[in-house]
Amino acid sequence: MAVCEILSVGTEILLGDILNTNTRFLSEELAKLGISVLRHTTVGDNPERLREAASTALGRSDIVIATGGLGPTADDITREICCDAFGFELVVDEEIVEDIRSYFRRKGTDMPETNLRQAYVPVGGAVFRNENGTAPGLGMKKNGKCLVILPGPPYEMAPMYKKSVVPFIKEYAGGIIASHTVRTMKIGESAMAEICADMLEKANPTVAPYAKMGEALLRVTAKADSEEAAEEMCKPVIEEIKRRLGGYVYGIDSENIEGRVVELLKKNKLSIATAESCTAGYIPKRITDVPGASSVFEYGAVTYSNAAKEKVLGVKHSTLEEFGAVSSETALEMAAGIRRISGADIGISVTGIAGPESDESGKPAGLIYVAIDAEDYSECEKVETARNDREYNRYVSASRALNLVRIYIEQKRG
Amino acid sequence: MAVCEILSVGTEILLGDILNTNTRFLSEELAKLGISVLRHTTVGDNPERLREAASTALGRSDIVIATGGLGPTADDITREICCDAFGFELVVDEEIVEDIRSYFRRKGTDMPETNLRQAYVPVGGAVFRNENGTAPGLGMKKNGKCLVILPGPPYEMAPMYKKSVVPFIKEYAGGIIASHTVRTMKIGESAMAEICADMLEKANPTVAPYAKMGEALLRVTAKADSEEAAEEMCKPVIEEIKRRLGGYVYGIDSENIEGRVVELLKKNKLSIATAESCTAGYIPKRITDVPGASSVFEYGAVTYSNAAKEKVLGVKHSTLEEFGAVSSETALEMAAGIRRISGADIGISVTGIAGPESDESGKPAGLIYVAIDAEDYSECEKVETARNDREYNRYVSASRALNLVRIYIEQKRG
Repeated sequence: MAVCEILSVGTEILLGDILNTNTRFLSEELAKLGISVLRHTTVGDNPERLREAASTALGRSDIVIATGGLGPTADDITREICCDAFGFELVVDEEIVEDIRSYFRRKGTDMPETNLRQAYVPVGGAVFRNENGTAPGLGMKKNGKCLVILPGPPYEMAPMYKKSVVPFIKEYAGGIIASHTVRTMKIGESAMAEICADMLEKANPTVAPYAKMGEALLRVTAKADSEEAAEEMCKPVIEEIKRRLGGYVYGIDSENIEGRVVELLKKNKLSIATAESCTAGYIPKRITDVPGASSVFEYGAVTYSNAAKEKVLGVKHSTLEEFGAVSSETALEMAAGIRRISGADIGISVTGIAGPESDESGKPAGLIYVAIDAEDYSECEKVETARNDREYNRYVSASRALNLVRIYIEQKRG
Repeated sequence: MAVCEILSVGTEILLGDILNTNTRFLSEELAKLGISVLRHTTVGDNPERLREAASTALGRSDIVIATGGLGPTADDITREICCDAFGFELVVDEEIVEDIRSYFRRKGTDMPETNLRQAYVPVGGAVFRNENGTAPGLGMKKNGKCLVILPGPPYEMAPMYKKSVVPFIKEYAGGIIASHTVRTMKIGESAMAEICADMLEKANPTVAPYAKMGEALLRVTAKADSEEAAEEMCKPVIEEIKRRLGGYVYGIDSENIEGRVVELLKKNKLSIATAESCTAGYIPKRITDVPGASSVFEYGAVTYSNAAKEKVLGVKHSTLEEFGAVSSETALEMAAGIRRISGADIGISVTGIAGPESDESGKPAGLIYVAIDAEDYSECEKVETARNDREYNRYVSASRALNLVRIYIEQKRG
């Protein structure tokens, strides 16, 4: 299996001014080709450290992909340093000069002379035209190794990778990889891993656990000579995981619970309305993050105060008095209330203490009730995150409320 | 100047499954302490490569901060490998065992035995308690060098860094840095940079422009021997920027517009209610991201459909017929409606086309109206982002609606 290393160049990354999204994009794309990315390295616009990083990477990896530092200014040194480290000389390419000139012409300005530097290309190398900027990408091969240099801006780099780099590195592509993610809720990562302990030790397919904001995931990855064969290898493993984890599994390859819920609502032609206290808009925000959610989402009420819970949702004053706003009784009345006033098929609600502090009554941060109300069905679930993290508590309780919808539809509507 | 290197550990990063945001956070924070981050390195959960990366980093840098791979499962090896590479032995810490047990007790479950691994700490090292998870952070110092190991999940890592790591690495901090951010809205980054062009060329304080989701920012950074001196150097520069940019400036060091708006509402004892179409919960979500927002936020209605706009907010049928849902007329009636039914001092509204597609009427994605209604005051603003990016359009229009509140209070309430 060919081994690859990604080298990011740019002081702005080391200063934390920009988030490095290029490595994630490239890693995901290279994995699809069955190329192993074993290291990401970032250095600044510093000749010595860049040279050392490039030489080390070229020494130990089959493919090195460097991004960034191809701009027209003096601190952009990636082209010169990396080509030199790999033993390639640079010459001006007149076609690229014309490309750059015409780019500026289209923008209605003259090409600054400094941009000429971007027309230098390696003798005996490949040049990848840049359709979204001025710096072309460069590719070189020598002694079975390969160096690719790409511009840093993601909107220049990504299309260039797909169009020019994939064919350039094709000979390094390994067996075909199929990868699927089993997503669960309400079970911890370690409990999930214990249940699947024997599967985590297998080599092909591999099964790897990880955790993400109140969810535990298992990634199943198989490698074979064809896509069909790799998919066939994944299937029984996914089935076995589903069998063992049962109702904890909310989706296979679903991007998140809101995507899964919108999919189920659409499939069953059901509509939903939301009543929220502590999540305060997070659930409708997430439902409508899914394009096309307008066909299933009716109405959402954010009733932060007790007065609004009574006035808007019709929660009984006596319920709030006796059990408090943070109680299963209130959650259930909120869900029933929003369903009634909206006319939606399903009403869901959240009420609880997001934190970071506990409330006056002494109820702790992270104590949250989520409820669902539908025809002949209602359920309430108590969530206890034991955390003071406001964003975490709000995200996780919104997820749990959505998960109630998933359970209801799967069990009652199929 | 102390030199630092950040080492991220996790195969999920190399596979492109998750975006590495920890390095950006740490880089930004370390820069504030005057510590130079010269390299980011990522390796997978592989003992040989992790050992080699840790040893190399410890050899060439004063500080190494490793994140990730502290979980309870067998593939989590960062603790063992990095401590060994730095020459520190691990022993069980009974206090941490109790921490972890009580974490699970609060969640109502027993501690899986595998979690015991997370209670191993280096002999002679420091332990950073984890308030948002089970794995503690670890700190070690030897021969002038320093190794810090932190859990991978950002919501565990970031608070731990601020609370425990900053004091632990304080002796490595360079000259004292004071840094302030001037935040603006409704002016582009380049227009802002042109107005302040001469200031961008100065060395100390430096003034640097950047752009962020519909906002343009200027960062003013001064370096001196004392905090007071550094602060004194920033002051006149910030005043000059405020003078030049006027009403575009919505805050100095405000984390965001919602924080500034909650601050202004509290100071003036005003309450707010929201009526949203395309942002669908994003505004109340953001208002209530600010802890303590419950004293100013009354009620929010997410009226996605025209029927809900009429029924809940009392938008006139004829308005929707004549001008459409995406119009200044509808936006103004939504704002007035939500103020009336909630009894809040201020009502704001958003209606528009989030995208990625344009609507049936041919109105383009990114065309959005935001409005405000208060006593003797109402305003509507047309936002045209010219983008198909759903998240961007929703975020930016929510910001613009909030900015209307800022302008109203600053102008009318002082």
